[in-house]
Amino acid sequence: MRDVAIIGAGVTKFGELWDKSFRALGIEAGIKAMSDANLSGNEIDGIFIGNMSAGQFIKQKHIDALIADYTGMATNHIPATRVEAGGASGGVAFRQAVMAVASGMHDVVMVGGAEKMTDMDDVSINSVLDATADAEWEAGMGVTFAGLHAMIANRMIHDGIATREEIASFSVNSHFHGALNPNAQFRKAITLDTVLKSGPTATPLGMFDCAPISDGAAGLVLCPLEDAKKYTDSYVKVSAVAQASDTLALFQRPDITTYQATVEAAKRAYEQAGITAQDIDVAEVHDTYTVTGIMALQDLGFYKRGEAGKAVLNEECHFDSGKIAINTSGGLKARGHPIGATGVAQIVEIVEQLRGSADKRQVENAKYGLAQNTGGTGSAVTVSILEAM
Amino acid sequence: MRDVAIIGAGVTKFGELWDKSFRALGIEAGIKAMSDANLSGNEIDGIFIGNMSAGQFIKQKHIDALIADYTGMATNHIPATRVEAGGASGGVAFRQAVMAVASGMHDVVMVGGAEKMTDMDDVSINSVLDATADAEWEAGMGVTFAGLHAMIANRMIHDGIATREEIASFSVNSHFHGALNPNAQFRKAITLDTVLKSGPTATPLGMFDCAPISDGAAGLVLCPLEDAKKYTDSYVKVSAVAQASDTLALFQRPDITTYQATVEAAKRAYEQAGITAQDIDVAEVHDTYTVTGIMALQDLGFYKRGEAGKAVLNEECHFDSGKIAINTSGGLKARGHPIGATGVAQIVEIVEQLRGSADKRQVENAKYGLAQNTGGTGSAVTVSILEAM
Repeated sequence: MRDVAIIGAGVTKFGELWDKSFRALGIEAGIKAMSDANLSGNEIDGIFIGNMSAGQFIKQKHIDALIADYTGMATNHIPATRVEAGGASGGVAFRQAVMAVASGMHDVVMVGGAEKMTDMDDVSINSVLDATADAEWEAGMGVTFAGLHAMIANRMIHDGIATREEIASFSVNSHFHGALNPNAQFRKAITLDTVLKSGPTATPLGMFDCAPISDGAAGLVLCPLEDAKKYTDSYVKVSAVAQASDTLALFQRPDITTYQATVEAAKRAYEQAGITAQDIDVAEVHDTYTVTGIMALQDLGFYKRGEAGKAVLNEECHFDSGKIAINTSGGLKARGHPIGATGVAQIVEIVEQLRGSADKRQVENAKYGLAQNTGGTGSAVTVSILEAM
Repeated sequence: MRDVAIIGAGVTKFGELWDKSFRALGIEAGIKAMSDANLSGNEIDGIFIGNMSAGQFIKQKHIDALIADYTGMATNHIPATRVEAGGASGGVAFRQAVMAVASGMHDVVMVGGAEKMTDMDDVSINSVLDATADAEWEAGMGVTFAGLHAMIANRMIHDGIATREEIASFSVNSHFHGALNPNAQFRKAITLDTVLKSGPTATPLGMFDCAPISDGAAGLVLCPLEDAKKYTDSYVKVSAVAQASDTLALFQRPDITTYQATVEAAKRAYEQAGITAQDIDVAEVHDTYTVTGIMALQDLGFYKRGEAGKAVLNEECHFDSGKIAINTSGGLKARGHPIGATGVAQIVEIVEQLRGSADKRQVENAKYGLAQNTGGTGSAVTVSILEAM
């Protein structure tokens, strides 16, 4: 297997982008990533795209071909592949791209993630989101995605793993960073009180515990590590990319206060990279809900069970805390969550951090960064580790 | 890159399977493939799934996790990845799996393809199918998938590339073979007259020019070629797997009587395998419509432009003709077309032929087999070449 490098990264603004189509967003992110890598479409020989539901959100399936076409790459007839794994679509697309370069089947590969969600009414959006839960045994019985996460939160509180305040503090951490990221959907720091007093979504979770509905896209360019210098001086190494699965339905698991797929993927990723959780300086974790953010910090091995919530509440996860920096992009909660784009955008943020271009939210001397991307209620998880060069 | 072998293959019956759920079909194909490879789920370390639209057909997205879960593989938390490329979903999933083994990232990989289409009413089905065309410039303007293919047929007739009778004869060839395949949806040979006099779909195409709506699933097990003998004596080698894309919309191409993505993917595949079109003994081509079958034979280099139709009408493509055997499974038209399963089922048929287990439709001494799988109107195409060992 060849070592793989990321030589280009780009992301659009995330938010309710009424004036931008799915196509326009995909093209913008792709062009940003290519120009960051100092190359043109002609040099790309493969594309991998993470997208959850363009078929339902904008009535367009087969967006592999769409993206190849609208970025001008269909004229070279290069292969374009769309991957879907619910919320983990972006992370899984990244893994396919790494595999393609590592195997030698491709040399210069574009990874794209995109979603256009706000063109749909709220009820319809929720029916699409709920389809990542188990259609027969969860969604079909009336439980919503927020409801499933509320069950997790209640159990964590009941078992003394985290208090309501500690869970809520994850949103404060995300908003703190979102205020520093010009591409974030919400650029306003908030207090714990705001989260605790926000309108209820599914008790105990309120509106500020939940990631928003967003439009946006992100792109990356990969090549063999040995070729990276041909294109740019600011590249990062892909040290690991691991993926794991779990039961589709939450109720089938022995313990709902941990995502075993995160635990397994992390174990494999640390092994591949030859490091431990303690070596990670900066991480983007999948905070669809505050409670999944807290769980991720424990499942990834950054904190022991019962300690993640305290750390976040104590502001230990700020970019400038000197400890581990979490969701410096603003995370899903404040940067926004255009589903298929999220996993790719997480990697973009880690790339920015490792090459020192994260501006006002720059983590000092970051050497290793990690991104954790989750589908469903932890039914598919990718954990990627990048290393500064 | 490691060489890759197929050590197991299985397919369900295709058809209107009212008594079988999506889950049951996926499990049946998976278990058949695993038992064919003489291994259990514990030995599989990765899954790749081709599926076009479970999100719409059965309101279940994230079927990567579903399949991992219901085949009992979620307990090992192995990665499961769903790929979508319209009608080429199965072929693209196969390519990802080959890449995963070739790269060394996985050792024993399952490829699955499945679709459950008949639970939906016809109008809704068509709206899903049309979403693989260009939503803005084709489907949005009212043209249907059948309508797009009728335009191709009309142009071919107008340009003298094939007559209406020659185009229709592709369906006769498919039904001839379907009658010999116990798993086919339609097991009845038909005459040219039946096709020509069938009710109109989009002129000049009639009902018998169009592949049916189907339920079904197919599975394959892959491993490194050097390990194949550990599992079975009847394995085949993956000599090539190539993929190419084209514009999403048909009208944007200089010539609609050829799929350039097929031409390109075939060129790459022959190069990878070190052979030419003349070396192929048996092929499964993507006859969603009779006219795409005729085009495929020309684009793959089996026949010169203007000669494929004559050859099919002359029954040169029968399994026992001594020339190239085309769609011995019955093809999409007679075997059936559960979209995500199709690309995988094509490979299953080639495996059967190359190891001599195709029973009444066995091609004698088949050494090389090819499968061509198409998404949209040729916007994504995979061409895979297998070799008997």
